[in-house]
Amino acid sequence: MSESGSDDDAILRANRAFYAAMDRGDLAAMADLWSETVPVTCVHPGDAVLSGRSTVLASWKEIFAGGGTRGIRCHDATVLRQGDMALVVGYEALGGGFLAAVNAFVREGPVWKMVHHQAGPTRGAPKASAPQAPTVH
Amino acid sequence: MSESGSDDDAILRANRAFYAAMDRGDLAAMADLWSETVPVTCVHPGDAVLSGRSTVLASWKEIFAGGGTRGIRCHDATVLRQGDMALVVGYEALGGGFLAAVNAFVREGPVWKMVHHQAGPTRGAPKASAPQAPTVH
Repeated sequence: MSESGSDDDAILRANRAFYAAMDRGDLAAMADLWSETVPVTCVHPGDAVLSGRSTVLASWKEIFAGGGTRGIRCHDATVLRQGDMALVVGYEALGGGFLAAVNAFVREGPVWKMVHHQAGPTRGAPKASAPQAPTVH
Repeated sequence: MSESGSDDDAILRANRAFYAAMDRGDLAAMADLWSETVPVTCVHPGDAVLSGRSTVLASWKEIFAGGGTRGIRCHDATVLRQGDMALVVGYEALGGGFLAAVNAFVREGPVWKMVHHQAGPTRGAPKASAPQAPTVH
C-alpha cells in the first residue's frame, strides 16, 4: 500500500472514530480524538465558533447529555491531505436529515488528531447509499 | 519576522483576497484564489457539498450575479497552520447578520491557494469590533 493510501486510511480511521464517539455519546473517546497540542475550534450546527480544547469538549459533554447525536452516520467522506494536515468533507445523516460537515486533522506521531469540526444545515444529500462504517478497525 | 509569522501573514493575505473578491463580486480574482492542483470543495450556507474547481467556480459566478456578497467582511480570523496546509476560522458579517466560516488553504510555491470554504448560520458573533481589512497589501 502506498504511503499516501496508508495516510488516507489513518485519517478515515480517525474520522470513523469521531462518528463512533458521537454515535455512542462517548465523551472519553471524543476527548482522546482532539489535539492537545494545537488550538482547536468547533462549530456545531447553528452555533458560535468555539475555541480551545476545554470549551470544545464542554460542548460535546452538553450535546452527549442530550443524546442528540445517537445514530449519526458519515456519508461521502472525501479526504484532502497535504503533509501533516488533512480535511475530511462529507455529509452527516442524523435524525432523518443531513448536515454538511468538514473535519480537520493534524498528524501527531502515528495518529491523526482532530483540530476543527464544522457542520451545518444543507439542502444536499449524499450520493453513496451506504454510510462510512462508524466502527474503528 | 519569524518564518511562522511570515506564513501566517501570507495565509491571512489570501484570506483577505478571498473576502475582497466576494465584496467586489470579482469572479476572475475568485478563480485565481482557488487551487488548480488539488480537488477543491465548497459549502455555501445551507447548500450542498460542491466538489471540483469548475463546479465551485460556477457557484461563485451564480452568487456574484445575484450580488449577494457585496459588503461582506471577515471578523476574528484565526489561523491554524501545519506545514503546507492551513485553516482560517472566523465570522463573516453580511447583510446585518453573521455566518461562521472556515477556509482551508494549501501552499503552492510562494502563495496559498484555497481548497475548501464552508460557511453557515450561527448564533454567535465576533468579539472584534473592527473587521479584517478586505484589501490586499
